[in-house]
Amino acid sequence: MRTILIIGAGRSASSLIHYLLDKSEKENLHLVIGDLSLALAQKKTNNHPNATAIALDIYDKDQRQIAIQQADIVISMLPAHLHIEVARDCIVYKKSMVTASYVSDAMQELDAAAKENNLIFMNEIGLDPGIDHMSAMKVIDEIGDKGGKMLLFESFCGGLVAPESDTNLWNYKFTWAPRNVVLAGQGGAAKFIQEGAYKYIPYCNLFRRTEFLDVEGYGRFEAYSNRDSLKYRSVYGLDDVLTLYRGTIRRVGFSKAWNMFVQLGMTDDSYVMEDSENMSYRKFVNSFLPYHPTDSVEIKVRLILKIDQDDIMWDKLVELDLFSHKKIVGLKNATPARILEKILSDSWTLQPEDKDMIVMYHKFGYELYGEKKQIDSKMVCIGEDQTYTAMAKTVGLPVAMATLLILNGKITTPGVQLPIRKEVYLPILKELEEYGVVFKEQAMPYLGYNPLKVF
Amino acid sequence: MRTILIIGAGRSASSLIHYLLDKSEKENLHLVIGDLSLALAQKKTNNHPNATAIALDIYDKDQRQIAIQQADIVISMLPAHLHIEVARDCIVYKKSMVTASYVSDAMQELDAAAKENNLIFMNEIGLDPGIDHMSAMKVIDEIGDKGGKMLLFESFCGGLVAPESDTNLWNYKFTWAPRNVVLAGQGGAAKFIQEGAYKYIPYCNLFRRTEFLDVEGYGRFEAYSNRDSLKYRSVYGLDDVLTLYRGTIRRVGFSKAWNMFVQLGMTDDSYVMEDSENMSYRKFVNSFLPYHPTDSVEIKVRLILKIDQDDIMWDKLVELDLFSHKKIVGLKNATPARILEKILSDSWTLQPEDKDMIVMYHKFGYELYGEKKQIDSKMVCIGEDQTYTAMAKTVGLPVAMATLLILNGKITTPGVQLPIRKEVYLPILKELEEYGVVFKEQAMPYLGYNPLKVF
Repeated sequence: MRTILIIGAGRSASSLIHYLLDKSEKENLHLVIGDLSLALAQKKTNNHPNATAIALDIYDKDQRQIAIQQADIVISMLPAHLHIEVARDCIVYKKSMVTASYVSDAMQELDAAAKENNLIFMNEIGLDPGIDHMSAMKVIDEIGDKGGKMLLFESFCGGLVAPESDTNLWNYKFTWAPRNVVLAGQGGAAKFIQEGAYKYIPYCNLFRRTEFLDVEGYGRFEAYSNRDSLKYRSVYGLDDVLTLYRGTIRRVGFSKAWNMFVQLGMTDDSYVMEDSENMSYRKFVNSFLPYHPTDSVEIKVRLILKIDQDDIMWDKLVELDLFSHKKIVGLKNATPARILEKILSDSWTLQPEDKDMIVMYHKFGYELYGEKKQIDSKMVCIGEDQTYTAMAKTVGLPVAMATLLILNGKITTPGVQLPIRKEVYLPILKELEEYGVVFKEQAMPYLGYNPLKVF
Repeated sequence: MRTILIIGAGRSASSLIHYLLDKSEKENLHLVIGDLSLALAQKKTNNHPNATAIALDIYDKDQRQIAIQQADIVISMLPAHLHIEVARDCIVYKKSMVTASYVSDAMQELDAAAKENNLIFMNEIGLDPGIDHMSAMKVIDEIGDKGGKMLLFESFCGGLVAPESDTNLWNYKFTWAPRNVVLAGQGGAAKFIQEGAYKYIPYCNLFRRTEFLDVEGYGRFEAYSNRDSLKYRSVYGLDDVLTLYRGTIRRVGFSKAWNMFVQLGMTDDSYVMEDSENMSYRKFVNSFLPYHPTDSVEIKVRLILKIDQDDIMWDKLVELDLFSHKKIVGLKNATPARILEKILSDSWTLQPEDKDMIVMYHKFGYELYGEKKQIDSKMVCIGEDQTYTAMAKTVGLPVAMATLLILNGKITTPGVQLPIRKEVYLPILKELEEYGVVFKEQAMPYLGYNPLKVF
């Protein structure tokens, strides 16, 4: 038997554990599932004979080291900042490890030690980062292998609600950490390159500079720019590419409506509001509006945001019960962002029968033998239920598959790694298709930024 | 002879030194003017027999301590963060000191030591902070002495260009640190109270939430909110006041136009732009706009900001030569804010014959014997020339006057002080009138926020 230690048994571990337990007989696997909550770990074993639940406090060094020592490979599904403790122990006890998180500086520093010990520290192998890297590198490598030269790479991803569960005017529900949705785009201007020119979008304009994306069978989406589109320029070998843009996918109209919160100041997480605990939703809104003895909160919002009464933007605000006298925030010393998250959670929390949806969309523009060409690659994944969500599947399955490929000696390059090599992405993308994670690649005329060739 | 050590002989020291030299005969004063640049210090002595220039490096401890030891009182006109070195020496050598800067935490910590040694460390006695404290406290104390209860305090100040030198469409030139003008309002939401309700304005809306101010003989101004209007609530004894608001004065239309820069992202100081050195002004603007192969920078700006071609907003941008192909930024690794400052300095630098103007406006609402009343207090000061500017006068004269009052034993309260006591503000406000700094106080019907009494 080969022992896989899985640390962290939260939401995103469901599909991962399910996959590995399914394979456990054939592959001789024993899963040790460790979580601060033994009950949660036990629930995730599903009484499977090849799984053991243990209580594991990541800050308890002895407990942690014993568990790692007894494993053949370690999966960390902990919050990102906690991986490093596990990683250091993995160096000591000579175990490979897998995470779905971004490579931190501390993790990167272990690269030489991992290589020395012939260990594989595979990171960023969830959805985004993860499946985005793999599905992009597959096409980029194919273009390069044919002798093509990349001109343009745009990459979009979004966690949304499935069409059958899409029941509100925002066409959106929280399918992942709500706080990250509220804070999205903050902390600096978005930066990218279009046709060789660096472009910058300030936060206050971010949600007004979207682009449209059409996905057959699912209709039209929009995307707003991620903060740093240039992060993987060198990693992907795209240092000379003219256009590099990464964005977040929403249904059309979401961003324009979200911008109302930005303009009012409701997404600010930098200060605490006075007496937030006892504030009604209405008073929260009024805090961002000028005082007037008689004008209603409603008309002040309409004036400041220039919303006609028959504008769907208005209905979107009303749907959230934003003007309620009766609903109370109930959070002590809360920032505007925390309060907005609370208000949105009233309306945007997935219901038991709701399903989520992941949409990913890449555009590859390139030149081959003097001809400009384009490939669009699209993937839509719909969740099964509230446990095996599209998010849990797309984050967890690549982690599980990579773990097994490492155990079986199919992935061999040691060091702190991203899933950008053929030995990683080819088998995983292929196997993901069996689980409904399918990229449809489509050759099309090069559009670039001048489809009509007007000059 | 009594020796006054003045450390820092920059722009704001001109009127201060001029005042003290004028009084030097009668008051038996000897000025020692120390600056890193001996030439600058010498120039400021104006060959006056009662002044000595010395080279003084504030980081040279021996030099600094000798100078302080030999003085009877010390004025520090250094950048704010450097006062503390001087202040600590003043404790050691038992000298009182005067600055025009905000009290830092480090300065506040010297309060007990200053009191123990019966020393006066007078701070915030320039214009803003300074004259604002004094002119406000005078009226607040008068209302309190009559038995009135303060309901509302609004206070506005602005450094502007004098009407006779007001030659551009923005009705603005840089009369003080341009960088502070570009960064104004950044770093968090503006916070204030209106009629008992806390209000917050995000940066992206700050310049659209102005209020108008009329000053007889000078026409209409506007003001946008300062970041923290509540800073002096307790210091002024206004803990129960219903409305507390502080703002910055500009000519009407400035803020709406400035907001164009905010919306485009040009005031951002948090990141460095690629190849800023070789960028034309036009390319700088284009960095904040979507790529298009043929649409001009001009039409893209007009679309994104929704500016009609006959809108004065457009003329304001054109006046700055913002769309020039030929003008090059020429600054290495510059942030958008630095580049904008450069572009604006081309147009907004005071010309040799230009004069500046200071406008201050306070509103005091109060209740006396059941009746609501209001007093408005306004001051306009126009500079004489480029040396004795309104800014140099209003910053430097109160510093000089306070220094003499301390020397002459007229200001007696020891410790780290602000000019909020009668012993300070009464003589200084009175003397300032001789120099043209005159507050016109005007009793008027209480306006509050419901002048028409509509309910």
